[in-house]
Amino acid sequence: MRHLALLSRLARPADTKIVLLVLDGLGDLATPAQPRTALEAAATPHLDALAGRASLGRILPVATGVTPGSGPGHLALFGYDPAAPENDIGRGVLEALGLGLVLAPTDVTARGNFATADAAGNLVDRRAGRIPTAACERVCARINAALAGFDGGRVEVVPGEAHRFVLWLRGDGLSAAVDDTDPQALGVPPQAARETAPDGAATAALVRRAVAVMEQAIADEPQANRVLLRGFSRLPDLPQMDELYKLRLGAFAGYPLYRGVASACGMEVVPCGKRIGEILDTVAARWSDFDYFFLHVKQTDQAGEDGDLATKTAVIEEVDRELPRLLALGSDVLAITGDHSTPAPMKAHSFHPVPLLLAAEIAFADGARRFTERTAATGHLGTFPSRDLMGLLLAHAGRLEKYGA
Amino acid sequence: MRHLALLSRLARPADTKIVLLVLDGLGDLATPAQPRTALEAAATPHLDALAGRASLGRILPVATGVTPGSGPGHLALFGYDPAAPENDIGRGVLEALGLGLVLAPTDVTARGNFATADAAGNLVDRRAGRIPTAACERVCARINAALAGFDGGRVEVVPGEAHRFVLWLRGDGLSAAVDDTDPQALGVPPQAARETAPDGAATAALVRRAVAVMEQAIADEPQANRVLLRGFSRLPDLPQMDELYKLRLGAFAGYPLYRGVASACGMEVVPCGKRIGEILDTVAARWSDFDYFFLHVKQTDQAGEDGDLATKTAVIEEVDRELPRLLALGSDVLAITGDHSTPAPMKAHSFHPVPLLLAAEIAFADGARRFTERTAATGHLGTFPSRDLMGLLLAHAGRLEKYGA
Repeated sequence: MRHLALLSRLARPADTKIVLLVLDGLGDLATPAQPRTALEAAATPHLDALAGRASLGRILPVATGVTPGSGPGHLALFGYDPAAPENDIGRGVLEALGLGLVLAPTDVTARGNFATADAAGNLVDRRAGRIPTAACERVCARINAALAGFDGGRVEVVPGEAHRFVLWLRGDGLSAAVDDTDPQALGVPPQAARETAPDGAATAALVRRAVAVMEQAIADEPQANRVLLRGFSRLPDLPQMDELYKLRLGAFAGYPLYRGVASACGMEVVPCGKRIGEILDTVAARWSDFDYFFLHVKQTDQAGEDGDLATKTAVIEEVDRELPRLLALGSDVLAITGDHSTPAPMKAHSFHPVPLLLAAEIAFADGARRFTERTAATGHLGTFPSRDLMGLLLAHAGRLEKYGA
Repeated sequence: MRHLALLSRLARPADTKIVLLVLDGLGDLATPAQPRTALEAAATPHLDALAGRASLGRILPVATGVTPGSGPGHLALFGYDPAAPENDIGRGVLEALGLGLVLAPTDVTARGNFATADAAGNLVDRRAGRIPTAACERVCARINAALAGFDGGRVEVVPGEAHRFVLWLRGDGLSAAVDDTDPQALGVPPQAARETAPDGAATAALVRRAVAVMEQAIADEPQANRVLLRGFSRLPDLPQMDELYKLRLGAFAGYPLYRGVASACGMEVVPCGKRIGEILDTVAARWSDFDYFFLHVKQTDQAGEDGDLATKTAVIEEVDRELPRLLALGSDVLAITGDHSTPAPMKAHSFHPVPLLLAAEIAFADGARRFTERTAATGHLGTFPSRDLMGLLLAHAGRLEKYGA
């Protein structure tokens, strides 16, 4: 908080624009088996030219060796300490944001799994045979019909992928101090919801009664006949970026999770498409409305998760082709980086530092010929925590007062 | 404080000498418009030779993206956390130190502006037409004559540049918990001094009475007929460097502000000239009296503030010509760096990291051919907070015990 307090104290309005282009999971690996990273393999003439007059460096999302989820990865890019408990985005909230739910600060959500129990009520499959998404939607509809008259209609389930759903509790007086009901074991029944602190007692009781209604409604389902709940949580009470930094902030992301995180931080979410070209169309149309533009490209991460270096490379080349259009908008500061690395050889998020390019009139020109993990490792910006990026963007945009006389 | 406590616990006396040569505002920018920094443009054969056997690195004065004033920049070089509130040097104190006032710990100072009010008492010019310094001195003399018998002679004004002055309150029982009287607006009268905490009430009342005397004395002035006060403050109660580090410390600075900060940290201030040659004359004469020598060269910063790369380059070349004389003194550790960057293209202090050269028998020899922002960015010392430099100097001087067994 002291870090944010210092930035907030120094932040001043200015007539400058900042663009943060996040290529999700950008960082990749060079190994004997994969000698070139996606950034190295991609043909990127426009990025190459930009690199010559930009500063390069690397960011560490959470801490050395720590692999971030998407929530912490983005919170850090926005200046928050992702390891601070008060900034934690719970699993239920993250799942809800990913489904595009618009949560009130008082709402409580949990991540749900459908599960299969035998006649004695003991679990035999904690994922209900990974039922198809269509089946999940059908079962959720049965549950919501049964919950329609329950507790003033404040309880609802929202279907996700396969056996996953979100339990959504609305209204006043709720608490997230409720323990998981998933016993994480077979041959035993689900656990009854219990409070983890005294102020969770009423909500835990509400959840127990709701689960009874839900499970009665699906008792005849051959697979999805029980519910397991985890990660009861509410939106963290984050200091809002517009007040912190004296910026008008717009989020341009094609996927709900990133819109949700941006919204929770105080950005205005602007509906847009999923590919960089569609995103830039929307950014251009709203250019005069914001000082700070968060652009999120998801496909780099998806390709990394698939272990598909060729597709990850192609996505970077697609971004490079659109880069002149982004540059033509004339931002004062442009940063290109990722929320974390998703190396293709790992098919997963990783802890590796993330390459960063920062272009601005007062950026020290590294003179690099390319923007890659290797050139970034020796760039002028060095390697630093992701949460310091926000201060660097503001500084390059002339939006921070001098500290002390 | 934990950082200082650790260093202090480990500090041990030794028969070694440390020289910290601060070239104020040393760091500069390479951009397409200014392809070479001052360090890169300067012909520095002696620095080049030294760089080959020294360790290079970069320091961050306050935090990533934060531009430091001279006070925080130097406190960090001396090992203090410049962002800690207890180390804050208030505006009034800094201004007083800059005028060469020797403040007692109990004194309270404020930065003053002369201003112009109309017949109704409303401000029409918050800077009194930026009256010449000679006029400021004349007006201050009128005020001091009027204050001669006031409150036991404990209140005085000291003229600064143009419309600026310092209000100096001496004696026991004073508090700095007094708010600014500058309304930061025209068409309204100056504000009456008010306490910001209960213990400031008596001092605020004293200031109100003093301001009445002052403004009565200058009521007939056409321009400088009102006073605006800001930044009431006293010297921070800094742990003293001689006790912390078991060193005899001498400050060799040609300008009052830096002498004042050094004195507040526990250094003995040695009167000397303003140019590096004059400073070295004095250092040589006092070589046996100290273990730590803080040498301050101001002209690099002045040239940067003027946007004058050629002069900044020439100052660095002047330092280079004198370097053999400094080396001949035979210090065990020599560090050359700045308190912050003042890039010529920005004509102001900046947030960019500051290059650092550290020469010592046990310094890892980077083998660099030059000492520049670019070679420093990849040097052995890495990029680290300025406040860690003090520990590095002590370590290279063999003045820190091993930590733990």
